[in-house]
Amino acid sequence: MFTATQAIVAREPEQPFKPNWSLEDVNVGEFGDDEVLVEVVATGICHTDLVLSSIPTGALGIAYPKIVGHEAAHPAYCDKFAVGNYVGRQASIKTTSDDQTTWSQYFGQSSFAKLTVANESSIVNAKDLIEDLDELKLFAPLGCGFQTGMGAVQNITSAGPEDVVLISGLGAVGMGAVMTAHIENCKAIIAVDRVKPRLELAKPLGATHTIDTSDPEFTTLDEAIRRLFPSGASVVIDTTGVPSIIEQSVQATTARGKFVVIGVPPLGYELKVNVAQHINVGDPSHFQNYRLTDIRMKSGRSILGCIEGDCVPGKAIPQMIKWYRDGKFPIDKLIDFFDATDFGQALGKLHTGETIKPVLMWK
Amino acid sequence: MFTATQAIVAREPEQPFKPNWSLEDVNVGEFGDDEVLVEVVATGICHTDLVLSSIPTGALGIAYPKIVGHEAAHPAYCDKFAVGNYVGRQASIKTTSDDQTTWSQYFGQSSFAKLTVANESSIVNAKDLIEDLDELKLFAPLGCGFQTGMGAVQNITSAGPEDVVLISGLGAVGMGAVMTAHIENCKAIIAVDRVKPRLELAKPLGATHTIDTSDPEFTTLDEAIRRLFPSGASVVIDTTGVPSIIEQSVQATTARGKFVVIGVPPLGYELKVNVAQHINVGDPSHFQNYRLTDIRMKSGRSILGCIEGDCVPGKAIPQMIKWYRDGKFPIDKLIDFFDATDFGQALGKLHTGETIKPVLMWK
Repeated sequence: MFTATQAIVAREPEQPFKPNWSLEDVNVGEFGDDEVLVEVVATGICHTDLVLSSIPTGALGIAYPKIVGHEAAHPAYCDKFAVGNYVGRQASIKTTSDDQTTWSQYFGQSSFAKLTVANESSIVNAKDLIEDLDELKLFAPLGCGFQTGMGAVQNITSAGPEDVVLISGLGAVGMGAVMTAHIENCKAIIAVDRVKPRLELAKPLGATHTIDTSDPEFTTLDEAIRRLFPSGASVVIDTTGVPSIIEQSVQATTARGKFVVIGVPPLGYELKVNVAQHINVGDPSHFQNYRLTDIRMKSGRSILGCIEGDCVPGKAIPQMIKWYRDGKFPIDKLIDFFDATDFGQALGKLHTGETIKPVLMWK
Repeated sequence: MFTATQAIVAREPEQPFKPNWSLEDVNVGEFGDDEVLVEVVATGICHTDLVLSSIPTGALGIAYPKIVGHEAAHPAYCDKFAVGNYVGRQASIKTTSDDQTTWSQYFGQSSFAKLTVANESSIVNAKDLIEDLDELKLFAPLGCGFQTGMGAVQNITSAGPEDVVLISGLGAVGMGAVMTAHIENCKAIIAVDRVKPRLELAKPLGATHTIDTSDPEFTTLDEAIRRLFPSGASVVIDTTGVPSIIEQSVQATTARGKFVVIGVPPLGYELKVNVAQHINVGDPSHFQNYRLTDIRMKSGRSILGCIEGDCVPGKAIPQMIKWYRDGKFPIDKLIDFFDATDFGQALGKLHTGETIKPVLMWK
């Protein structure tokens, strides 16, 4: 039996790497014994949704029509992560206009539909966590971006009162990291972005310093941080994926510092790491521009990968909810709500940086 | 007042990057209020001694004549590490033949001299640690290579019973890592070298598997480890500094695995890290060679720097001595003793791989 509902359906991109989304009538049904029908109240939009619905058919096994949307609890790592999450499976939801079975269960959920189908193992009973429908809408995106930024600080780097923390890119991941570094009493929190209102917003959340990369006087991240802290930052978190910022981040990291690379750069991009300089002897060719007394030990750095901040969602999400209620993790200042039908407007404001985290609501 | 003694003096390299050492008569004296005259009983030779006495005058501020030799307790990181340790200072020890003041206090000690001068802050009273002169000779090299390998396992990666540990290069650092991984009950310990006797020696120390890179059937480290453990190794420690082995090590590391780069590759060498593949989305261009069901999540890896294994020598050295006495850290099987006058023979056996750790003794 099928039920008529609506979804944001991603069709084959007409231009490579540009998502082709439209609101469509769909029919949902034919689900298995271990699956449940889920009514989606609210769902965050994440850059991953854009990336994984803009790749042409074939690469990564991706095909269309497809329903994306995620931001809920799911295991961060497994061997079949790419297939299970990026591709999903072809079942349960059919388009009305041309009766095609969509690729759904993207990240176990395909939440860009008013009604969707999920495996029961992907469902978390939140009745003890959430007080009302407004909280449900507000907490919808906790399981992805905010969690990643939180975990980058708390799990991946264990940043604390001794650390100078540099965070580039003030989207949900970056802001999650700023708030968590503040909760962890980090010595300094330097927020970096090219959008001024985001830099202003980061201050009450905990940023002690800001660096505006759109400032005509900005040269490199390394130079900017060393003006504030001559040794550099002991924890550097990149959420931008911009190659030049990633390269400058390595230099901005102090000896023994930790550089966490979260932002996804263009596929195939290779970061060149000067191993001797990064690790131990220091590279004389690099030193020759310095006077002897200026030679700093810059090695012993670590470059750290980070998926979902290494969080266990069942622990991380209740913790962030508690922080929110204690006024320490004010995600309400970072979320803009849109009717699901206005997803185009949400995407526009995400693109300009006006909105940190858009959440779509189904009525 | 000067005292006549002997030292292995490094003169300006006649061929670039080839050390020019000779046993010379020297005079030691003129030391400050905070310095002490030290009689050197035994001293390990470390690759760092070769590297830092083979760089032409000027680079890194290095000059000749110079007395190298280290392997004792010293802080692993400080801002002036390069100047303080690599360059040392021009004082206290003069050559007899041409009355030049040598560059000494290399790594705070310049231990390639029978009598040398050290700052009192570099001196550790070992009378409660060491039972006799034989132990003093045996424990001489604990403070460098063995400590680095030990700390790479214990401090940098916290390897334990869940970990498959791959260790490339079976010098003192690699053997220190093998013994420590064994002490930490690691699930598997795969030792990699191109010298067969070293591979054989690693087995009783704890290696559960060996990979011989000189075997004509050897292709890449990645392929070799995946034949044993299809997901790769969760902890990979490179002590070789060989670029091809470093590159293969990244691939040999499993998702969320830790790759520790200890070996110093040619100066200026840049490791190219495919960031998307290393971090989170996986790189579709890489996936296209795989069937969908074979796509593995390989990201979330970390590349870790390591100097002296992040050890506090005052804790690490007594711990290794205790392990030695308990029969768990049998460095006596890894050390060959030479008269200081036979340093050339020691260097030859170090080069062929016949000797793991040469220790020079002054009579």
